[in-house]
Amino acid sequence: MTVKVSHTAEIQNLFNEAAGLNNDQGSPRVKQIMLRIINDAAKIIEDLEITDDEFWKTVDYLNRLGGRNEVGLLVPGLGLEHFLDVLQDAKDAQAGLTGGTPRTIEGPLYVAGAPLVEGEARMDDGSELDRATVMFLEGVVTDTQGQPVAGAVVDLWHANTQGNYSYFDKSQSDYNLRRRIVTDSEGRYRARSIVPNGYGCAPDGPTQECLDLLGRHGQRPAHIHFFISAPGHRHLTTQINLAGEQYLWDDFAYATRDGLVGDIQFVEDAAAAHDRGVQGNRFATLAFDFQLQKAPAPQAEQRSKRPRALQQA
Amino acid sequence: MTVKVSHTAEIQNLFNEAAGLNNDQGSPRVKQIMLRIINDAAKIIEDLEITDDEFWKTVDYLNRLGGRNEVGLLVPGLGLEHFLDVLQDAKDAQAGLTGGTPRTIEGPLYVAGAPLVEGEARMDDGSELDRATVMFLEGVVTDTQGQPVAGAVVDLWHANTQGNYSYFDKSQSDYNLRRRIVTDSEGRYRARSIVPNGYGCAPDGPTQECLDLLGRHGQRPAHIHFFISAPGHRHLTTQINLAGEQYLWDDFAYATRDGLVGDIQFVEDAAAAHDRGVQGNRFATLAFDFQLQKAPAPQAEQRSKRPRALQQA
Repeated sequence: MTVKVSHTAEIQNLFNEAAGLNNDQGSPRVKQIMLRIINDAAKIIEDLEITDDEFWKTVDYLNRLGGRNEVGLLVPGLGLEHFLDVLQDAKDAQAGLTGGTPRTIEGPLYVAGAPLVEGEARMDDGSELDRATVMFLEGVVTDTQGQPVAGAVVDLWHANTQGNYSYFDKSQSDYNLRRRIVTDSEGRYRARSIVPNGYGCAPDGPTQECLDLLGRHGQRPAHIHFFISAPGHRHLTTQINLAGEQYLWDDFAYATRDGLVGDIQFVEDAAAAHDRGVQGNRFATLAFDFQLQKAPAPQAEQRSKRPRALQQA
Repeated sequence: MTVKVSHTAEIQNLFNEAAGLNNDQGSPRVKQIMLRIINDAAKIIEDLEITDDEFWKTVDYLNRLGGRNEVGLLVPGLGLEHFLDVLQDAKDAQAGLTGGTPRTIEGPLYVAGAPLVEGEARMDDGSELDRATVMFLEGVVTDTQGQPVAGAVVDLWHANTQGNYSYFDKSQSDYNLRRRIVTDSEGRYRARSIVPNGYGCAPDGPTQECLDLLGRHGQRPAHIHFFISAPGHRHLTTQINLAGEQYLWDDFAYATRDGLVGDIQFVEDAAAAHDRGVQGNRFATLAFDFQLQKAPAPQAEQRSKRPRALQQA
């Protein structure tokens, strides 16, 4: 028979003490959450008869996961970041906040403080033009009634041809493939960039180590991240995932959603390329519009206070 | 009303997929454990209405906790390592494995491969004799019938006068205050060392940050760690916590147990000090015997396979 002690007075007293319930310092909210986490952890250990070896391997794994700064990568890999989106959708529906472009996960690779430009941005530093396909991205930001939102900030970031992101990939220039574009009077944003490649978890990292044990790959389809914000409108965190990608509906991070697939068009036309200032005869176009909800309260205009790289920039 | 979605088919399918239940690769055991963890995490988020900010601050905290290698320090601080001891005691009682010196937590600061000496060891490198009190520690290892166990390995480690451990504290010499002592024909071990100071969590570390939020200190009483092993006997992981210490029964790691309090004696006697080769007129003595259970199976002679520093040494 499975032996259990977590319900005993001895252990309940221990956990209450450990969670700080016997003192009046600290944070009542953190105590409440911690007491639940401790009790749930103990029940998992008992119910699944976790061995000492399993427990301490997990402790070691968590040290290595944090040591590589990959907790924010494992969380979407386990479906929990997508779960948070679905949960927020349900809360929104209950509150009558519907319509607009769907949200999807932020991921861990945003960097604050990208260059701010009006209307149109060149996003890449030109270093990959020998192998990249130039991409022209454009669209309109409107409200849910279709009215253009002028002065919206379209803060977008994406990977290079190797699937890597500037700042985290130190070989790239600062803010390569990261820009903030302010929409023009017609709500329009335009970018010239390069077609990104799909992201993959570091093969030697702890996230991939976990995915291997779960029998899973760690790949994402090529995609473009967006924060979109404007006064009076609700902040939107979302992504465009590119049509035709192998992992479009087999994304290890579960970010692809209906309404967020970008229909990228590859063009082979030397004259058109020349007109657009592209070397060679090939480029890509991608049109994607965004609809923002009205902000139900001023704080809804802001993104979450999630700790991010270069927070203060 | 609290909004919940974790029970829906959509989210259950997501979590099953994320935990690898839709493929036949990887480890069935890890999948089983991960599915439980994901579901429990989602229920915590829903039941306690965890906000986005709370969730992402936790992710950031876990990165910093692992980045400082402190997961193995937070775990005893939350009472979970002591819980594992109490749970193992209950399993032992059910299996009829009783008697002997109580087990208590290992903590995260063991280092394998300390010098191996016969009968008697000098443990300190002499670097703190200007401020330390010399300590003479001795005792007998027996079985639960009181029969001496010759050739047992008493693998002990403790902090210096600053509460710090060699290897983790790079200012100390290699293996300072760490030795493996082989008991003599009468089961006896003897050590000359220095009286340790209590350990405290790093004030700027993430473990203390959490304890602060729980309104708790991060201090331990002065103590000495032991692994004791001998052929035919069950491995014992335990500690002596020193009587008279402020934190003896207020240990942030909950390691002190009845039967594990060491009655250290401080002696002021210049002649006795001289006879023992001690400079000055003050020293301390500590006698502590250990009783080992018979090993119910060969693997019970070994400590857990917990990943440790210098594993291969």
